[in-house]
Amino acid sequence: MHARLQHGVFGYTAPPEELRQAIVERLARRYGWHVDPAWIVFLPGVVPGLHVSARQLMRPDEHALLPTPLYQHFKRALELAPRAYSEIPLVLERGRWLFDLAALRAARRPKTRLLYLCNPQNPGGTVFRRDELVRLAEEARGCVIVSDEIHCDLVLDPSERHVPIASVDPEISRRTVTLMSASKAFNIPSAGCAWAIAEDAALREAMSADVRAHVLPSPSVFGYAATLAALREAGAWLEAELAYLRGNRDLVEQELPLPIAHVQATYLAWIDCRSLAEDAYELFLRHGVALSPGSQFGAPGFVRLNFGTQRSRLAEALRRMRRALGSSG
Amino acid sequence: MHARLQHGVFGYTAPPEELRQAIVERLARRYGWHVDPAWIVFLPGVVPGLHVSARQLMRPDEHALLPTPLYQHFKRALELAPRAYSEIPLVLERGRWLFDLAALRAARRPKTRLLYLCNPQNPGGTVFRRDELVRLAEEARGCVIVSDEIHCDLVLDPSERHVPIASVDPEISRRTVTLMSASKAFNIPSAGCAWAIAEDAALREAMSADVRAHVLPSPSVFGYAATLAALREAGAWLEAELAYLRGNRDLVEQELPLPIAHVQATYLAWIDCRSLAEDAYELFLRHGVALSPGSQFGAPGFVRLNFGTQRSRLAEALRRMRRALGSSG
Repeated sequence: MHARLQHGVFGYTAPPEELRQAIVERLARRYGWHVDPAWIVFLPGVVPGLHVSARQLMRPDEHALLPTPLYQHFKRALELAPRAYSEIPLVLERGRWLFDLAALRAARRPKTRLLYLCNPQNPGGTVFRRDELVRLAEEARGCVIVSDEIHCDLVLDPSERHVPIASVDPEISRRTVTLMSASKAFNIPSAGCAWAIAEDAALREAMSADVRAHVLPSPSVFGYAATLAALREAGAWLEAELAYLRGNRDLVEQELPLPIAHVQATYLAWIDCRSLAEDAYELFLRHGVALSPGSQFGAPGFVRLNFGTQRSRLAEALRRMRRALGSSG
Repeated sequence: MHARLQHGVFGYTAPPEELRQAIVERLARRYGWHVDPAWIVFLPGVVPGLHVSARQLMRPDEHALLPTPLYQHFKRALELAPRAYSEIPLVLERGRWLFDLAALRAARRPKTRLLYLCNPQNPGGTVFRRDELVRLAEEARGCVIVSDEIHCDLVLDPSERHVPIASVDPEISRRTVTLMSASKAFNIPSAGCAWAIAEDAALREAMSADVRAHVLPSPSVFGYAATLAALREAGAWLEAELAYLRGNRDLVEQELPLPIAHVQATYLAWIDCRSLAEDAYELFLRHGVALSPGSQFGAPGFVRLNFGTQRSRLAEALRRMRRALGSSG
């Protein structure tokens, strides 16, 4: 990034070819996923990409499937587009939030065009396995799959491995748009750079339409530079971060006397507070801990804790939360 | 920018308060325009701002007025929204492209909601004067005015002064959205930072809706930093740039044997090639000069030359253009 700053010219710019290459090489190395550099469409963020997907991949009368609880911007993208959607609750199986395939089947309509996926799952923390993704894609036969994989580099369980859904089968690849960014794993959201990957040319055209028309800006030159630096040079930093987050995750799971699905990935704990007599968000806030209320994700009764912070701060938050639970009896 | 890079944390960010202050102070100092810091809405670019204005300030059945020739993204924003519009040709008066008020009046409809203004004018190069802006605003009585003033710092004629249309009258201020950015004057478009200024709270809400919903990203942290550096510390650089551009402008006006309205501002010359027997864009391209075809701005028969470049390169371009004109007889 210093080198790019030294360059001194910040006129109109294009995505650097070496960034495409860095992405392609990383996906092959880490996930065995082989993509063509031309499949990559740069976007200024994953959330703008969700909005583009709802507006450009769906006709106004079409319908989407949304496995919930889910990061709120998926639903928001559909509401603002606006496009119809059905929420299909995930089910907790042996400590992991998984797809309810029967419910998904029941929710399909003749106009169902799109399935949204968030993998690793936000807020649930699940890393979906190959066979789970295959069955999901089969259930969504004929649908386009938009898969937000922004947390792919934040798998905490050494026994789990991120599987891009587009990598599991050529047929699935041809109908999938994968959204990615270095923003989460490397904590550079203010640099503003993301990308969609789509093998299918028509899906790619649709995903790039708003950037081509300048309705959406391209990533900034520093977003490209920060992303390139992260992907190429921050491997050791990422390993250290994962070890630290793993420690934080373990602390949360040990210290909180509430049901939490095991956090396989992300820095987010999805905490089941349905046993509490009062609103959990308000209770913890009153005791000095601001969590994300579950209602934001379509699941009141839960809260989401972001543990991507200094351990001492997390420990203090957990102390306050235990105090809150004690006071609430 | 180096200082911001040294900071090392690039998580979620908010517009820096000091940037709001720098904008407010600059507008007061240079244009005698007094705005409240709260009137500023940050956007990732002026062109995304044009799209927001068409989509959020107009209902689907409303209509806009577009004085042409005009930078192509105004029309594109209305086409994609989509919203109805009428083009009203500017008229050449004593070497300046000015508004045709009678034609503007005739083009108004009951559903006319919005007047787009580009001041200084792109591609015409006009710096509109206070009385011209007052008469224009009167003609557009009751309409919202969206004024792209991105070239405001690039006034080349020492006798002219940029007048923000919102500064001429309190009533006009209440119905105007002004779009600005440091991208043009300081050549930092790849940093990605712009802003809208609106006194009226409802207009401001509408202009910020897409950024608040994350349909559009905020400017990147480096866009803020680059803009702050430009506005605060690049005064001498801007003066030197203006002197250089003035020299380039004079060279273009002296060397080209074609009618060109005097370029009062911008680094763009709007060249009247209607006397040529063949398509001017194609002719010059064949001789090694890629201009912007007038058709892009709604005026075939013209070409737009960007003279914001090294003088030696410009001199070579002008030599080739003269050769082209000689060959075309």
